[in-house]
Amino acid sequence: MDNKYAIILGNLGNTRDRFCQGYKVNPGSEEMLKIALERMPHIQGIELVGTWDIRPDNVEDMKKRLDDAGVACASIIPDTFGDKVYGRGSITSINAKVRQQALDYLRRMSEIALQMNCGIVNLWLGQDGYDYLLATDYDQERNWLTENTRTVAAEFPTLKYALEYKPKEPRNFSYHARMADTILAAKETGCDNVGVTIDTGHSFYAGENVAEAVVLAKRAGNLLYHMHFNDNHGSWDDDMIVSNVHFTCYIELLFWLKKTGYNGWLSMDQYPYREDAADAIAESILWVKKYEQIVDTHYNEIDALIKENDAVKTSRFLRKLIA
Amino acid sequence: MDNKYAIILGNLGNTRDRFCQGYKVNPGSEEMLKIALERMPHIQGIELVGTWDIRPDNVEDMKKRLDDAGVACASIIPDTFGDKVYGRGSITSINAKVRQQALDYLRRMSEIALQMNCGIVNLWLGQDGYDYLLATDYDQERNWLTENTRTVAAEFPTLKYALEYKPKEPRNFSYHARMADTILAAKETGCDNVGVTIDTGHSFYAGENVAEAVVLAKRAGNLLYHMHFNDNHGSWDDDMIVSNVHFTCYIELLFWLKKTGYNGWLSMDQYPYREDAADAIAESILWVKKYEQIVDTHYNEIDALIKENDAVKTSRFLRKLIA
Amino acid sequence: MDNKYAIILGNLGNTRDRFCQGYKVNPGSEEMLKIALERMPHIQGIELVGTWDIRPDNVEDMKKRLDDAGVACASIIPDTFGDKVYGRGSITSINAKVRQQALDYLRRMSEIALQMNCGIVNLWLGQDGYDYLLATDYDQERNWLTENTRTVAAEFPTLKYALEYKPKEPRNFSYHARMADTILAAKETGCDNVGVTIDTGHSFYAGENVAEAVVLAKRAGNLLYHMHFNDNHGSWDDDMIVSNVHFTCYIELLFWLKKTGYNGWLSMDQYPYREDAADAIAESILWVKKYEQIVDTHYNEIDALIKENDAVKTSRFLRKLIA
Amino acid sequence: MDNKYAIILGNLGNTRDRFCQGYKVNPGSEEMLKIALERMPHIQGIELVGTWDIRPDNVEDMKKRLDDAGVACASIIPDTFGDKVYGRGSITSINAKVRQQALDYLRRMSEIALQMNCGIVNLWLGQDGYDYLLATDYDQERNWLTENTRTVAAEFPTLKYALEYKPKEPRNFSYHARMADTILAAKETGCDNVGVTIDTGHSFYAGENVAEAVVLAKRAGNLLYHMHFNDNHGSWDDDMIVSNVHFTCYIELLFWLKKTGYNGWLSMDQYPYREDAADAIAESILWVKKYEQIVDTHYNEIDALIKENDAVKTSRFLRKLIA
Repeated sequence: MDNKYAIILGNLGNTRDRFCQGYKVNPGSEEMLKIALERMPHIQGIELVGTWDIRPDNVEDMKKRLDDAGVACASIIPDTFGDKVYGRGSITSINAKVRQQALDYLRRMSEIALQMNCGIVNLWLGQDGYDYLLATDYDQERNWLTENTRTVAAEFPTLKYALEYKPKEPRNFSYHARMADTILAAKETGCDNVGVTIDTGHSFYAGENVAEAVVLAKRAGNLLYHMHFNDNHGSWDDDMIVSNVHFTCYIELLFWLKKTGYNGWLSMDQYPYREDAADAIAESILWVKKYEQIVDTHYNEIDALIKENDAVKTSRFLRKLIA
Repeated sequence: MDNKYAIILGNLGNTRDRFCQGYKVNPGSEEMLKIALERMPHIQGIELVGTWDIRPDNVEDMKKRLDDAGVACASIIPDTFGDKVYGRGSITSINAKVRQQALDYLRRMSEIALQMNCGIVNLWLGQDGYDYLLATDYDQERNWLTENTRTVAAEFPTLKYALEYKPKEPRNFSYHARMADTILAAKETGCDNVGVTIDTGHSFYAGENVAEAVVLAKRAGNLLYHMHFNDNHGSWDDDMIVSNVHFTCYIELLFWLKKTGYNGWLSMDQYPYREDAADAIAESILWVKKYEQIVDTHYNEIDALIKENDAVKTSRFLRKLIA
Repeated sequence: MDNKYAIILGNLGNTRDRFCQGYKVNPGSEEMLKIALERMPHIQGIELVGTWDIRPDNVEDMKKRLDDAGVACASIIPDTFGDKVYGRGSITSINAKVRQQALDYLRRMSEIALQMNCGIVNLWLGQDGYDYLLATDYDQERNWLTENTRTVAAEFPTLKYALEYKPKEPRNFSYHARMADTILAAKETGCDNVGVTIDTGHSFYAGENVAEAVVLAKRAGNLLYHMHFNDNHGSWDDDMIVSNVHFTCYIELLFWLKKTGYNGWLSMDQYPYREDAADAIAESILWVKKYEQIVDTHYNEIDALIKENDAVKTSRFLRKLIA
Repeated sequence: MDNKYAIILGNLGNTRDRFCQGYKVNPGSEEMLKIALERMPHIQGIELVGTWDIRPDNVEDMKKRLDDAGVACASIIPDTFGDKVYGRGSITSINAKVRQQALDYLRRMSEIALQMNCGIVNLWLGQDGYDYLLATDYDQERNWLTENTRTVAAEFPTLKYALEYKPKEPRNFSYHARMADTILAAKETGCDNVGVTIDTGHSFYAGENVAEAVVLAKRAGNLLYHMHFNDNHGSWDDDMIVSNVHFTCYIELLFWLKKTGYNGWLSMDQYPYREDAADAIAESILWVKKYEQIVDTHYNEIDALIKENDAVKTSRFLRKLIA
């Protein structure tokens, strides 16, 4: 494989939770970019969060900085999750003005993606979902979800809109929750430039098997557009360094990415609450590279194993990977 | 609403688990039918499990018994889960002979459904899935899943094939795991007589919200064909009496069934390990009827609540339902 | 029962998460107190979070305000979770200076509790735990946990230290995670004024049954000191209005609180991210009062039911509570 | 380390679940013993399930077979889970006759343990717990649990009673559910020969961290008596080959077993539903041996890592273990 590695710039910044407003200091985007370029020689791309990292007023400057460094803008991630105006939903808010504002914001971010020569808009609609039972008109809100996604995707046909799913947080239930429902949502738009982002950690605590999610996306028509990597303990989006908890599922994931011909980015998406961010993210890159190498070296062997359906043989294979 | 209530006959029989081979005695199907008819005056339908309750040799007799009692055959549930030949998969087995045998069995069960004047084949493919990571060719097995489902559905166009999803058990991962992936599987067949069964308990521990699952099925083209009711503690298919654990979600479910125009069966599917089966199942029927009545009485109020998106108002409404 | 109701003052303030820094405006403590007193006539007590609501410099003023309003200070909740200095642990930090600072802070908060005539220090040690596997000396850190808890509890023998357990968040694993391990931690101190706080939501997603947790605390020597109420969907601390999701478990909880002679506070602990806070918390109080009334009315009946061990009879009882 | 490896004999036999009565044929105990001795040269001990493998009538014969083969009887596992008489509880049944019968059975099994020169009675009280909310007197049943455990432990002071905990299955809630509550239960007996068995899989889906559970048992007074190994996907007792899913947690577990001076058995407890049993169990032994070797080789390095509390350094260490 000749995978392309990226990081999300903001992962190098401050971390906080609902109890503590900041575990770290927060360098500006330019400073974070400098850190990324100096300390992460492996990366070929950077993902930028809208508003935080990139806005109409700094797009030219940011483009120049990336160009000068020879790294691509891997994706633009519109911020519909951090602005309180979208706190009860962005393009699915029951407030028509908020929906309109969200749609206009997505248009602006799409323009920026074009200006950055960036093919992917990573759409994590974290506030679009619900919290309480018996308090939401799911059908109506899904209509808005489909219509607004369709609108922006149709207006920017050269961009790919990658819907990033996650079972919950910040809402108790997200509309884009798992691979299969996100495929349904993408297909409802009728646009052929709407697909899916897998975040490994989101998948781990969604109950699905991430490698099977890759296969579902393939079968739905090559709908896997983007990849975010991290790890967790299985019940929440702990956003940890890759491979502190899980092992085999990453091998299986890298195998199926290769087998299904995925050629997008392998991007790290962590939230290093208490760790040195650059070190922690660099670890993840090195882990994914290790898994990539395992799959490259043993591709035919793994391909035979999955056809044999014999857990003992799989176990023997895995054992020999450990020193 | 004028819902039709049913039960699965075998729920009146023996119960067991992997440790204990039987917590009860096992009456024959005829005896269980007698118990059902005597002790459950509310039911208008009976679901029969293939091989256990109904086979080519007793189909006429069973039909006469149901006709005489004035109850319908609500569904036929082919047994692809209890026969060891299908222990590593039925229509997705890597063994071509097993796949053929499973397909032929489904044909036989479809014939029986026709003979019983039963419109629904409830297809719970419990053994079709996998247990270990890196030991399965998901893409190949899903091809078989689609092809074989398509084959039988195309041959029996007047029957509806209701795919019953469940995240796991007996396999660690099922191919039909949640509503959204089962919709995708149904649509892959290209047949308009392949849809979905919701088992409330399966949905509860799948991480999805069951009322939203109803909406997904509606949006996919009226794909909700059948309903199984029970309750659990949220992490496993405990198959309990309705409403020992959950409350609001049943109201929401009955509301959305009505709002989306569901007109299929409301069938009980419990596994009363240690309880008197007839009493336990009767309790579930009475609970669902209570929820039905709540929804009928307050339909407009609930319809307004879901549009308001105000958790406090929903809470006030729920509170007044409690004596 | 003649239960005493309380709220946590800060629940009326701003809400945020790691993505959004504020869904609301943040009134000061004095303003929140005014709202509480005006809009929640049912409450007899207020819990104050250290540093945020109460400090050496405002303790006299706050005491006068509560006295004038005729409400008690139900507990002091030292803030070892929001101050970044404790971000990698407070009394279990591997940094000796941080441990000392945390201990001194707990002493200061204990002094304040005495000044406020408040008998309970609610010790939620949210930062004391760990995130990653193979990166923590659990034995050493538990030594510090025990020693420092013992030190402060021994110095303030007239106060009760109620350890509030929670499986995770903000750390991936908490040292005080469930009822049983928190009892062990309390007993390790050898102090008879160290006990436990149950937060219903923490218990729900810990996998334990909250009513059984009450029994464990009783058996360990009346170690249940304090109660926090809220609800969630079963997998995370959603901190919702009581009873949007669960129903029976609250009846069972109130029953066992009465049966075991609990005479502490019933305090609400929500995090109304997007709701009107006063309304949302008032709803929880009214729900708990309803459950209290159900238990008072049916105490003997429930007491007989739990001895009969018959799920069908329990179901019939529950059904008659619904209008 | 010089760990002793064992297996549970019955793991070589038939496997079934509540749907399928048997995925395999069931050889007799003598035949399984022969298979174990021939195909598992690594084992030094065998665990025998009461009634199934060992009864008063065959104890002499079984002892001779083990002696001749030079393997020890690692534990006796009384069967209080497979006999329907105990279906609603063994020593905690509300039926006094059943409690007496269970107690007498435990006495008989203890006698057999003495006859077999076996120091461990592994007490997995799978049926002792409850299924429904508001239908159980937890306090009363825990009294019976304590009294009966105390009675048998006091009568056989040279035996060690290892309580094997498990969150659920076959009951929806077990009384011995996690390490901490089982320590409390052991201590309630007041006997110094009552301790705990860790089954890794039970621990994985209990929400606890298994290495921390080892530390809890150590702190409670060397209460870890016995170890069962297997793996699962994190939400259920899938009873799989060690290490198909998890990796780091086994290293951490083996490290803490060594650090706390555990000197009991390392026994495999799988349920190879569809695999060749001898091969599958042998795989687990080889995995645990590999982890043992990693810990032996890197003991000091790991010991330093856990004191540093630096996730990045831990990650670097783990990475170098992978080829």
